[in-house]
Amino acid sequence: MLSALDLFAERGYDNTTVTEIAERAGLTKTTFFRHFPDKREVLSAGQEVHSRLLADGVAAAPDSATPLEAVAAALDALTASFTAEQREFGPRLLTVIADNPELQERATFKRAALAAALTSALDKRGVPDLTASLAAELGVRAFHRAFEHWVDPASQQTLTELARQALDELRAATAALG
Amino acid sequence: MLSALDLFAERGYDNTTVTEIAERAGLTKTTFFRHFPDKREVLSAGQEVHSRLLADGVAAAPDSATPLEAVAAALDALTASFTAEQREFGPRLLTVIADNPELQERATFKRAALAAALTSALDKRGVPDLTASLAAELGVRAFHRAFEHWVDPASQQTLTELARQALDELRAATAALG
Repeated sequence: MLSALDLFAERGYDNTTVTEIAERAGLTKTTFFRHFPDKREVLSAGQEVHSRLLADGVAAAPDSATPLEAVAAALDALTASFTAEQREFGPRLLTVIADNPELQERATFKRAALAAALTSALDKRGVPDLTASLAAELGVRAFHRAFEHWVDPASQQTLTELARQALDELRAATAALG
Repeated sequence: MLSALDLFAERGYDNTTVTEIAERAGLTKTTFFRHFPDKREVLSAGQEVHSRLLADGVAAAPDSATPLEAVAAALDALTASFTAEQREFGPRLLTVIADNPELQERATFKRAALAAALTSALDKRGVPDLTASLAAELGVRAFHRAFEHWVDPASQQTLTELARQALDELRAATAALG
């Protein structure tokens, strides 16, 4: 819902009504509500698709893959789905979320949902619970670090490269926990 | 706000009004709103106190402590603040949250806030960012695993013992990430 994002960026999230979002998108309010039960859902509509991409990526990893290797495969699958348009809107998206506690809360919950999808896919491979949920957490963090770098117009790398790199950095950081 | 928790458990979170919570607690609606801007804040009123206990615990750890040792000290400080009454109400609290997506979202956000407090306290000790945020994440997870065990009436250990144990298990799980 990039038209909604434009409105949020223009006049602030709190000052934007559902009717205005629907109008800008060329939808009736009824159609809008069928798709988005709530204004803030507009910004996290990708949650189910992203969860599925991550889970499928883990399932498709070779049997010999370690938990983090399976997560890397999942990130490849997820990051490949992102478009140039999403990159262009990225900075505005991040600003709108950063400016609004309600949206931050929604974003945090989306991260938890993605981690849960990864954890459950790792569980199905026989990865023990705790390890699965830690590997999932690292995967979600790697994705978000990569996304933040990628949407910077100065960035030269692909989202997939950035996510792999971020996952490697996180793995290295676990060695220093003590 | 244990009276609110009783009401949520009795009639469901969605069916409980702010007026009813205030009445049960012997407060006027105005007083209630001064303390809790929103119905769901009732269940996460400990967020600031808990964040402070964690941050102070990290700050008080010896200079020689590793990041996870500093987190263990923070968990000692946090868990020592819990009372028998909180243990008694624990199962009801967990049920009310598990039954309500809005409260799950709030609980997830509270966890993120506690992790942020721990991360920032570790940063002040000179722990590198990524390691600090991973150590913080393990700390928050350890606390929640411990809390879930502790509120089980069959549990024999203290919350502090359970949290230390959970942190050890999480540390061990990081070794299996691959």
